[in-house]
Amino acid sequence: MKQQNILIIGAGLCGSLLALRLGQRGYNVTVYEMRPDLRKTDISAGRSINLAFSDRGEKAMKLVGIEEKVKTLCIPMNGRMLHDKDGNTFLSNYSGREYEYINSISRGGLNALLLDEAETHKNVKIHFNKRCQFVDFEKTTATFIDTVTNDEFIEDADTIIATDGAGSALRRSYYLERKFLFSFSQDYLTHGYKELAILPTEDSDYKTYKNALHIWPRGDFMIIALPNLDGSFTVTLFLSYDQGEYNFNNLTTPEIVTEFFQKEFPDALDIMPNLVDDFFENPTAPLGTVKCTPWHYKGNTLLMGDSAHAIVPFYGQGMNASFEDVVEFDAVLDKYEGDWETIFSEYEKTRKKDTDAIADLAIDNFHEMKDHVANPIFQEKRKIEMALERLYPENYSSKYSLVTFNEHIGYREAMLRGRAQDKAILNMISDGTISADIDLTDKTLVGNLLDKVKTETNAILEDDKVAGLH
Amino acid sequence: MKQQNILIIGAGLCGSLLALRLGQRGYNVTVYEMRPDLRKTDISAGRSINLAFSDRGEKAMKLVGIEEKVKTLCIPMNGRMLHDKDGNTFLSNYSGREYEYINSISRGGLNALLLDEAETHKNVKIHFNKRCQFVDFEKTTATFIDTVTNDEFIEDADTIIATDGAGSALRRSYYLERKFLFSFSQDYLTHGYKELAILPTEDSDYKTYKNALHIWPRGDFMIIALPNLDGSFTVTLFLSYDQGEYNFNNLTTPEIVTEFFQKEFPDALDIMPNLVDDFFENPTAPLGTVKCTPWHYKGNTLLMGDSAHAIVPFYGQGMNASFEDVVEFDAVLDKYEGDWETIFSEYEKTRKKDTDAIADLAIDNFHEMKDHVANPIFQEKRKIEMALERLYPENYSSKYSLVTFNEHIGYREAMLRGRAQDKAILNMISDGTISADIDLTDKTLVGNLLDKVKTETNAILEDDKVAGLH
Repeated sequence: MKQQNILIIGAGLCGSLLALRLGQRGYNVTVYEMRPDLRKTDISAGRSINLAFSDRGEKAMKLVGIEEKVKTLCIPMNGRMLHDKDGNTFLSNYSGREYEYINSISRGGLNALLLDEAETHKNVKIHFNKRCQFVDFEKTTATFIDTVTNDEFIEDADTIIATDGAGSALRRSYYLERKFLFSFSQDYLTHGYKELAILPTEDSDYKTYKNALHIWPRGDFMIIALPNLDGSFTVTLFLSYDQGEYNFNNLTTPEIVTEFFQKEFPDALDIMPNLVDDFFENPTAPLGTVKCTPWHYKGNTLLMGDSAHAIVPFYGQGMNASFEDVVEFDAVLDKYEGDWETIFSEYEKTRKKDTDAIADLAIDNFHEMKDHVANPIFQEKRKIEMALERLYPENYSSKYSLVTFNEHIGYREAMLRGRAQDKAILNMISDGTISADIDLTDKTLVGNLLDKVKTETNAILEDDKVAGLH
Repeated sequence: MKQQNILIIGAGLCGSLLALRLGQRGYNVTVYEMRPDLRKTDISAGRSINLAFSDRGEKAMKLVGIEEKVKTLCIPMNGRMLHDKDGNTFLSNYSGREYEYINSISRGGLNALLLDEAETHKNVKIHFNKRCQFVDFEKTTATFIDTVTNDEFIEDADTIIATDGAGSALRRSYYLERKFLFSFSQDYLTHGYKELAILPTEDSDYKTYKNALHIWPRGDFMIIALPNLDGSFTVTLFLSYDQGEYNFNNLTTPEIVTEFFQKEFPDALDIMPNLVDDFFENPTAPLGTVKCTPWHYKGNTLLMGDSAHAIVPFYGQGMNASFEDVVEFDAVLDKYEGDWETIFSEYEKTRKKDTDAIADLAIDNFHEMKDHVANPIFQEKRKIEMALERLYPENYSSKYSLVTFNEHIGYREAMLRGRAQDKAILNMISDGTISADIDLTDKTLVGNLLDKVKTETNAILEDDKVAGLH
């Protein structure tokens, strides 16, 4: 069994973790990656430089035993630091429990670590500069081009797993071949994004508060900033392509870009003297969600990670979801090892509901981050939830906490309960049943509040169930 | 202005109605259709033979002044006639208002009428056997193949409107060219369908009740039957491809097909001696939903009808929605005539929310038809709603009535209010607040019930609004 040959397409975060795990399990693993080896070349290619790493990702690192090594790459972010137009800042913690926070991590650093770890297994071989052109899912073969020599070659395997990202070659083959009913969606937001930077001080120090995810929410657009180990921050501008006074289509001169930042993000502009250069050097990229089904063809081929479920970045869960894919896949392997078709179909059956949920949650959070975080009723909800988590840490988790810090429940369960809680709290604030204008440090008063929230949340879940809405 | 040349791709129901309306408005209209002229050839090609025609479709027929001619093609269906496994039947009216019913209409007959009417305008030219290969939406040209001579030719126009159905050539060009961000989804149900027939008696009479849409709901599958003018019924089997004891993949012999019908639909089998022949002659077709955006490229090209929004047939609204497209488009033309880009973008802005809604409603109704209609709590809801509509015809419309008979409101509004009503009624039945075990002919008691339903519905809509769910 274990002499089986597994071909993995793509050695990004998901592919290299999968190679490592399958290597640990004893399979013969061959990985083909279209880019050069990022440990030897300086490549960025418009992908996000840093990412949010949290508990679901950590669960996967524990599975492969490298959680301590990963910790050295992490910068804890305890909350969102909101910046208003006057340069005032407000820190809003991600959780009322102090031990719950997310981390900024370097994509390149983490990917390099995973590649190194995978290559410690002599049954794992990783080849770079090999671009997949086409997968023949009937024959379980894949055609590659060597991007250095331009040679084309075909690889055969017992099974092929494509972790080749949002533009997956296997997914394209599923779609174009029309050999089975393939449900598929690609949905773009009206907004694109562009990466910018806050460089370190001359002493390699951070120019603004290190341990937060900074947000400048402006209703219809925003910038965010995540810290890097070298003292810099990676800044991302999320902006409409063509709507509003300022948009990507009309930000065409240094003057207008500077005017835009001067007006909307003056405190950021103060620490971004490199703004104009970054703005015109870096690409503008779209924000898309991809869903599809089936993920597998018989026991021959499987989509995993972004190739199966690309999501927008607003919940900081893209990488974490792909890492969790490997954990879920590993659990299904334990159960059905030896029967790829059952493994693939059981994996999809248990996993897809959760990746669909995080895709939808990420879009919700797009609106929450750029808009709701500055909205009074949402701020009042947040205050109440912080008090609930602080005083009743065992009894309450906000939607954000359920999604981010409760890696033992699936995204779908987190979404259903989290949305019902949000609805309960917002409605009770709105009709005056509850309020943040009480002593939110008083355990009895807050306990009272918790009872109301729980009762109303359960009523909402029950009503939806009766109406057949889940 | 009116000398402008409009190219329409596809002379199906939507394309021929659009050609007629634009002909009436004085445009030079050229239509290319890939099939032969259905008035001269007997073609079916696996498309549904009859369709449900209702108020939104009628609104469009009134716009072009042919509502009386269409009426002669219609067979009124006042309700659903449910058939249980023992052959018992129950008629469930579509509305408590007697003047509200839907109609069975022949696709071919209606399409022929629309073609005839369009051709009465000398500024409308319709060409058959011309298959669109590709649309160059930058140049506003379309490439066709003459399917008789195999000649390829290119047509130029001032604007191109594609009404070429679920497999639209223009939509394929939008998707494959990647010249702009094109959001797109194709979603297949796990079920396919196959058309069968109940033939007329020897006296050309109907073998079962004429004025109903017959349903044999069996939980995970069903057959339905709609009457035709010649005394026959077109029967459609909706069944999973691969799940359950009987499915399309395992119904492979005359014996097993007969066994399946004998067990599940004995009363239908009694009047379908032709079952086995039909079953193996007719194709099995998939059930898909297509959504996309944008529908237009500048003022050059536009998707309309199924090409923009193919839906599953379970609300009987596919044709009606496409006809309503033409009504909505005509209203936008009134406002912005002369500026195609504004016309197309305003049309999409006002229309897409409604076609998205009917797509979702049609999937809801798939589950309702095969399953819920035989479920006690849904039956109790239906009884209550019939009483509300009968005794308070001006004050209550069920979701079905809002969608089907309230052509003055959009599908989205119908969906939001209809779903909230359903949820209110189901929850109040479930918790004992209301019940069908009262005298449902007593105006005071039913008035009381109406007040409760209205109050609870409005509370649900308000709660969703506060929670930002619309």
